[in-house]
Amino acid sequence: MADLSRLTVFVGVDGGATKTLAVSADAKGNVIGVGESGPSNYHVVGLDGAVKNINESIRQSLAPLKREVADVVTLGLAGMDTRHDFEVFEREAVSRILGRRVFVRHDAEIALVGATRGEPGVMVIAGTGSVAGARNRRGEYARCGGWGYVVGDEGSAYFLGREALRAVLWAYDGRGEQTVLTEKVMEALNISSPDEIMRKVYVEKMSVHEIARLAPLVTEAARNG
Amino acid sequence: MADLSRLTVFVGVDGGATKTLAVSADAKGNVIGVGESGPSNYHVVGLDGAVKNINESIRQSLAPLKREVADVVTLGLAGMDTRHDFEVFEREAVSRILGRRVFVRHDAEIALVGATRGEPGVMVIAGTGSVAGARNRRGEYARCGGWGYVVGDEGSAYFLGREALRAVLWAYDGRGEQTVLTEKVMEALNISSPDEIMRKVYVEKMSVHEIARLAPLVTEAARNG
Repeated sequence: MADLSRLTVFVGVDGGATKTLAVSADAKGNVIGVGESGPSNYHVVGLDGAVKNINESIRQSLAPLKREVADVVTLGLAGMDTRHDFEVFEREAVSRILGRRVFVRHDAEIALVGATRGEPGVMVIAGTGSVAGARNRRGEYARCGGWGYVVGDEGSAYFLGREALRAVLWAYDGRGEQTVLTEKVMEALNISSPDEIMRKVYVEKMSVHEIARLAPLVTEAARNG
Repeated sequence: MADLSRLTVFVGVDGGATKTLAVSADAKGNVIGVGESGPSNYHVVGLDGAVKNINESIRQSLAPLKREVADVVTLGLAGMDTRHDFEVFEREAVSRILGRRVFVRHDAEIALVGATRGEPGVMVIAGTGSVAGARNRRGEYARCGGWGYVVGDEGSAYFLGREALRAVLWAYDGRGEQTVLTEKVMEALNISSPDEIMRKVYVEKMSVHEIARLAPLVTEAARNG
């Protein structure tokens, strides 16, 4: 067995609003270990919370080596949306991360590199939110979208769910055509009249995820014409 | 002077999320008094809070008569958006209102009747939100829109403000044309790059009213071509 203590260890971290995943590997890409911890979107858990969870996931991924610090850590973090975010994170958090060299990236960028294995390419992610990222041959990265559920995320599950609710209300107040969505949405929300959407959205304060969960009704309705 | 104690007194109440206004009058429409108190949208202040503020405004409007109870009270209340809202309010709040007979209406309906003086008509209200209401010759009322900032309020100030933010981000990430809105919005928000809209909207959590306040930038930009 090689002398693991002298191995150069790389850790990749995928940090989101729900959980953080870390994978450690050697320079050839052989996986050494994995780690998982809580959220590391600093807008959600704060800088201290993000550092704590990132380090916990790194520690777990390094456990097979009995080491506490990686040589190179690349963080792909949700919430790194503006230059300001990078400045804040790099100034106040990076020095506390368990890596000798630490790189901070937007989570869509690491997903793109993962999907293309570093080759030039374009990736569109449409989940609860939506964002597109691209890298060219010179390694330059650009993104488009990913501006969140209030002013962006066109085509995302939240966007589709919200437009489904709007379509049901338009059919109800006479501005839109009757569609199968009315019945499907009422069934999904367990309501008996479209105007009860108001109670669901504003009184019970449906979350972004709950609205996003209506998106399959739209794709199903579209599939059935 | 007539015997005021035997007068039949009508009170009209306009209750919103910010304040409640009451006006008392006799059967001929002569104004007796006015009252003003805090919010009476029950989604904002609860049923007890709504009753308390409505009664306070009624009391003030009746002060010139030294009476505590009106003969007829019509409440035009914000937040009465669904059948469920009317059921809840009529079951748990109406009996405590200081009127022998109490009618509950949506605030857009009383605004329409006020604007048309009871004649048939259509009214479109476009403020922070948007709603249209209409009454025909038989006194039947119908409304359209008014479904709130998440799934409705098309054409409202919030809607215009949100679309302005979206247009600035589209121009920034390459999906849209450069327009004068970019400069105007950055100036209004006191930011130096469009991506800082993210911080304003999601971290500092711009309110519906703050986003609505951007609407004049859109009308101004449109006026200047």
